[in-house]
Amino acid sequence: MAEVRYWSEMSMPELEEVISGQPVVYLPIGSMEGHGPHLPSGTDWIQAEHIVDQLAQRTGGIILPGIGYGVCNSTDAFLGTISISFETLYNLAHEVMTSVAGWDVRYMVVISSHAGRTHMAAIDRAAKEVSRETGMIIMMLSDYDLAYGYKGEVGTEGGHGGAIETSRIMAIRGDLVGDLPTLDYAPREQFVILPDPEKGFPMGARGDLTKASKDLGDRINSDILDQLERMVMEMKDRH
Amino acid sequence: MAEVRYWSEMSMPELEEVISGQPVVYLPIGSMEGHGPHLPSGTDWIQAEHIVDQLAQRTGGIILPGIGYGVCNSTDAFLGTISISFETLYNLAHEVMTSVAGWDVRYMVVISSHAGRTHMAAIDRAAKEVSRETGMIIMMLSDYDLAYGYKGEVGTEGGHGGAIETSRIMAIRGDLVGDLPTLDYAPREQFVILPDPEKGFPMGARGDLTKASKDLGDRINSDILDQLERMVMEMKDRH
Amino acid sequence: MAEVRYWSEMSMPELEEVISGQPVVYLPIGSMEGHGPHLPSGTDWIQAEHIVDQLAQRTGGIILPGIGYGVCNSTDAFLGTISISFETLYNLAHEVMTSVAGWDVRYMVVISSHAGRTHMAAIDRAAKEVSRETGMIIMMLSDYDLAYGYKGEVGTEGGHGGAIETSRIMAIRGDLVGDLPTLDYAPREQFVILPDPEKGFPMGARGDLTKASKDLGDRINSDILDQLERMVMEMKDRH
Amino acid sequence: MAEVRYWSEMSMPELEEVISGQPVVYLPIGSMEGHGPHLPSGTDWIQAEHIVDQLAQRTGGIILPGIGYGVCNSTDAFLGTISISFETLYNLAHEVMTSVAGWDVRYMVVISSHAGRTHMAAIDRAAKEVSRETGMIIMMLSDYDLAYGYKGEVGTEGGHGGAIETSRIMAIRGDLVGDLPTLDYAPREQFVILPDPEKGFPMGARGDLTKASKDLGDRINSDILDQLERMVMEMKDRH
Amino acid sequence: MAEVRYWSEMSMPELEEVISGQPVVYLPIGSMEGHGPHLPSGTDWIQAEHIVDQLAQRTGGIILPGIGYGVCNSTDAFLGTISISFETLYNLAHEVMTSVAGWDVRYMVVISSHAGRTHMAAIDRAAKEVSRETGMIIMMLSDYDLAYGYKGEVGTEGGHGGAIETSRIMAIRGDLVGDLPTLDYAPREQFVILPDPEKGFPMGARGDLTKASKDLGDRINSDILDQLERMVMEMKDRH
Amino acid sequence: MAEVRYWSEMSMPELEEVISGQPVVYLPIGSMEGHGPHLPSGTDWIQAEHIVDQLAQRTGGIILPGIGYGVCNSTDAFLGTISISFETLYNLAHEVMTSVAGWDVRYMVVISSHAGRTHMAAIDRAAKEVSRETGMIIMMLSDYDLAYGYKGEVGTEGGHGGAIETSRIMAIRGDLVGDLPTLDYAPREQFVILPDPEKGFPMGARGDLTKASKDLGDRINSDILDQLERMVMEMKDRH
Repeated sequence: MAEVRYWSEMSMPELEEVISGQPVVYLPIGSMEGHGPHLPSGTDWIQAEHIVDQLAQRTGGIILPGIGYGVCNSTDAFLGTISISFETLYNLAHEVMTSVAGWDVRYMVVISSHAGRTHMAAIDRAAKEVSRETGMIIMMLSDYDLAYGYKGEVGTEGGHGGAIETSRIMAIRGDLVGDLPTLDYAPREQFVILPDPEKGFPMGARGDLTKASKDLGDRINSDILDQLERMVMEMKDRH
Repeated sequence: MAEVRYWSEMSMPELEEVISGQPVVYLPIGSMEGHGPHLPSGTDWIQAEHIVDQLAQRTGGIILPGIGYGVCNSTDAFLGTISISFETLYNLAHEVMTSVAGWDVRYMVVISSHAGRTHMAAIDRAAKEVSRETGMIIMMLSDYDLAYGYKGEVGTEGGHGGAIETSRIMAIRGDLVGDLPTLDYAPREQFVILPDPEKGFPMGARGDLTKASKDLGDRINSDILDQLERMVMEMKDRH
Repeated sequence: MAEVRYWSEMSMPELEEVISGQPVVYLPIGSMEGHGPHLPSGTDWIQAEHIVDQLAQRTGGIILPGIGYGVCNSTDAFLGTISISFETLYNLAHEVMTSVAGWDVRYMVVISSHAGRTHMAAIDRAAKEVSRETGMIIMMLSDYDLAYGYKGEVGTEGGHGGAIETSRIMAIRGDLVGDLPTLDYAPREQFVILPDPEKGFPMGARGDLTKASKDLGDRINSDILDQLERMVMEMKDRH
Repeated sequence: MAEVRYWSEMSMPELEEVISGQPVVYLPIGSMEGHGPHLPSGTDWIQAEHIVDQLAQRTGGIILPGIGYGVCNSTDAFLGTISISFETLYNLAHEVMTSVAGWDVRYMVVISSHAGRTHMAAIDRAAKEVSRETGMIIMMLSDYDLAYGYKGEVGTEGGHGGAIETSRIMAIRGDLVGDLPTLDYAPREQFVILPDPEKGFPMGARGDLTKASKDLGDRINSDILDQLERMVMEMKDRH
Repeated sequence: MAEVRYWSEMSMPELEEVISGQPVVYLPIGSMEGHGPHLPSGTDWIQAEHIVDQLAQRTGGIILPGIGYGVCNSTDAFLGTISISFETLYNLAHEVMTSVAGWDVRYMVVISSHAGRTHMAAIDRAAKEVSRETGMIIMMLSDYDLAYGYKGEVGTEGGHGGAIETSRIMAIRGDLVGDLPTLDYAPREQFVILPDPEKGFPMGARGDLTKASKDLGDRINSDILDQLERMVMEMKDRH
Repeated sequence: MAEVRYWSEMSMPELEEVISGQPVVYLPIGSMEGHGPHLPSGTDWIQAEHIVDQLAQRTGGIILPGIGYGVCNSTDAFLGTISISFETLYNLAHEVMTSVAGWDVRYMVVISSHAGRTHMAAIDRAAKEVSRETGMIIMMLSDYDLAYGYKGEVGTEGGHGGAIETSRIMAIRGDLVGDLPTLDYAPREQFVILPDPEKGFPMGARGDLTKASKDLGDRINSDILDQLERMVMEMKDRH
């Protein structure tokens, strides 16, 4: 098992030594967001921290303090959602990455378990600019870019608080999952933007939970970690 | 064939009458962007104007002056690219949509043939905010959200200036397509952001052009129009 | 007659060759703005496109996709007006000009037929900054800076939608001009800013239309073109 | 002679009483800007304070602390110029006017002796927005909008630091005027924006000073004051 | 001992119930900042999390995910510093507080162990605006506003990484404290801003460490907690 | 007595000569802010101008046009307050200081008699950035950083419009001080931010005025001047 260090726990001379070994620096990003009656509002945050912790144990590296807040522009109506703006997330990510690159870090991996379009675009834009400005190589994705491969298995709407997400939290923090409800929601209309998107899933989550299980969650999480480990290693090999 | 009107050509009383019939208002968005040795820099602009013109002839509606500039953050290095920032496109789209909604327009359809992530996120964010603020219903997509269904047919990299895009321009403005080159490019690494993405396709385009043809272009364009027509009609029916 | 090219229609190698000949690059700017019961809302846009097309045929050059939206802060109340903010226009103009200058264009000519003070200041500021930052020489004006020379001939209020503007559209797109109304408006108070400027011309236009005619329009347009042609040629000679 | 009060010198109860009489509130705006070898860098500031003081003695009213800094984007190269940005001046003017309007002031008069296009547009935009938002009536102009009527008398280039401006400072603060130089400058090219506008008048001023005199300055200042007094009185009468 | 809950761990119905009891919602804020050869870069973050955890155990309440990044404008030169801008911190704090207030939270307590002037002003400004806009009552301070009372005991320069801070980390995470160095630094000049403030303490910390001890740290931490507990209780009593 | 010059009164050659002698350049900053029934709204402005004038007579130097508006976020409710935003003051200070530094000024002293936290942070941030960017050495403080040393003498709440401030204005502009009221106010709660801070001192001022006197004011002003003179001289000696 590779060595995991925390940026916050190292002094100036320790950081100097560790960074000289060209470790990957990890930044987990999540959000506080109402996820229905059965999942905690930190669902995306819990997944991000879990995946980054596990991944760093496989690849080694330094873990930064995570960012627990994201851009949540279709779930504002659900109790527990704390939403920040595109600009704030973009600037925060840009400034943190720029500072990190300034200390001669070569590889940075940013994983966000919240996968909203505006949210991801804010981080993506920051990463592209910082990479161009500093030369640092940045892997940036949501673990849901990988997890949605399981949509077929659980029904076409993997969905916010749906079977994939519920299964994953069952596997990570089963103590935080309540009784699984039968969710009330309308099918998603692609590309149509309505003034009140929350009306499409009034319970704060969408999807069919009958296929949700801890086993499925373990399988998805393990598959994500295998893919991520391979991707990180390839990135280090090639660049 | 339904009646197509242009916002710029109607006087105050004409606009009042036409808008009272609840027409769709169309906004085409493209970009100026180097597209290799064989395609014009307005490739995305030409497609957007073409699709919107054809679509409006099927559904009726009002066409707004298009926006010919977009966010091009990985092709800045290719001669002909004119790139604007996320903020500028977001604000421009937001302000135009807000003004349009202020005249009691009920349906707006925004089609961008440029499909970069930051570019689309800027429009998407504007559309979500304006819809919530004004109640206007907005369909927002890239025709490439539909066209990429043809990736399997032309090789996994449909790509910037690749077989899909080349075929479509052959069908729309064949006079602007030069000799088809053999493109030199590296396979795309998913999720890895490099300081110099343009080095991955030094000729300004990527993909295998051996499958490109006017016939394929006609087929894709016609399929896109069929899908869009159905989607627009469903939106009007449901809301 | 000199050769007119369009930025959007040229490939990377074509642009390279054409730009090496030091052509003028033209950017027309207009706006959507209620112009009374008789003129189309794209009045300023139609004039800008017309003048730039005609001028480029005399001087040669490359025409960029135009910008059809402007800053309209005293006509927001008139149906058809689509107004963008100072910042948006400033940024859009700045970013487009910067990109163009980056491709080694030496001369750029920006003509806006909308001539509002805030609107013109946004473009002027962008042009001054880009010129200083890049060395590109930019001619920037409204054709109304020239056309208002005819104010004496048509009455002191040339005015928004008045005799000069109406005559010019009669000459360019007579099919879009409705019956000429007798406009109801208060005389303009210079330098006094009121909370509701639209109350001064409730019909969306001001001025005396009895002097408006296609002939006058032809004369004004032709005079503007002569002046512009001479100015562009002098700019190229001197710098 | 009407009573002149200063915002800074009145307590809360005094302000309440004075404002209830619907006085004009005056805001003078100037700039620090190199004005050649013979004029002080506060030339525009000195004129603005002088005109506002004199005008308030005729019309009565309250004088606010002035703003001594403006947007100077073609004189940055001249020693003494202190330039602020469009945004800063716009925001400063907007916020000051908004606060003033919040205390139920009905008439505000803003006079800037610096008359650069970007500078004036910043104040104009702020004034238009604040008037619309608050209902306050705002007169906004440069005294040079009036003084340039004397251009014919002194040569076509009234110019920065030229005969009109020099004459006016001779009349207001003759002790600050040095020996009148023969200025070296190129004729102004209208509408052409160059990367280095300061090269057109390397001495920091332009114009023919042979016509400059204290008498001319007295005449111009007195004429401006007469016009302004009439305009302020008309504004109060009509609205 | 009062009940401590975590925002991230509660579902929508759980949050609803807990918030109805009018708990204090806590937000800890720290920073990553080089703190000399002996302290970890997360020194401010570790203190903030510790104090908030301990305090919440005394008063009960909900703990939000903390913010691990702050505005560090005089320590950028020290390895490990990750600095964000005033705007980013202000916006982040404003948006998080606004969302929290939107869920009918009555009391919020924000504690930052980083105490830089710009940093504190960003949070202070956000708190003042959000309180006014939403009615939420916010206690906002740095524990160093209290800890600096011990300056007399340890020498006049309590200082960045000095005796107070070192003692406190010895008491909280003694395992992270390295050998105590003799720090090289110049005395602080009050009110004078130099281009290179880091030259005043080249080792990344300032102060006399001979007085630092775990016992002193325990005493300070315990005193801070007593004061904070009393202040929180008084706030709840009075408002 | 040293020579005092005014930036606004010097021509380009005069400025060149005077600046070559490395004078201190002074910028006074105040605010318009309701200060109770007895003090003028320009209280902070009057003090700043007075202190800077007196100080410059001792040290020599150049005085810039002052800034009469500041950030007043807890006194907006008091008639006479004119408040600008953090950004506006920050940008204004930054741009003015940057221009000044560009003319090779080595020492700048900024004194603000308004001492609100957000206000001071805006200037402080600008000063730190400009010093780093240009190398100019900047002394930046409020005279209240010194004057609050007299709090013990006049009661713990020196306060806004309280005994210290009242005494100082009695000494500077006694003609502007009204009858001294008995102020009605609640004791200040430290660190607690309320939605309506103005309710804590409904008369617009707080403190016990029984100790206020012209003599005390003279003593404080004189003490402040002595301290400032010494600080300025030390700054010039050391750097």
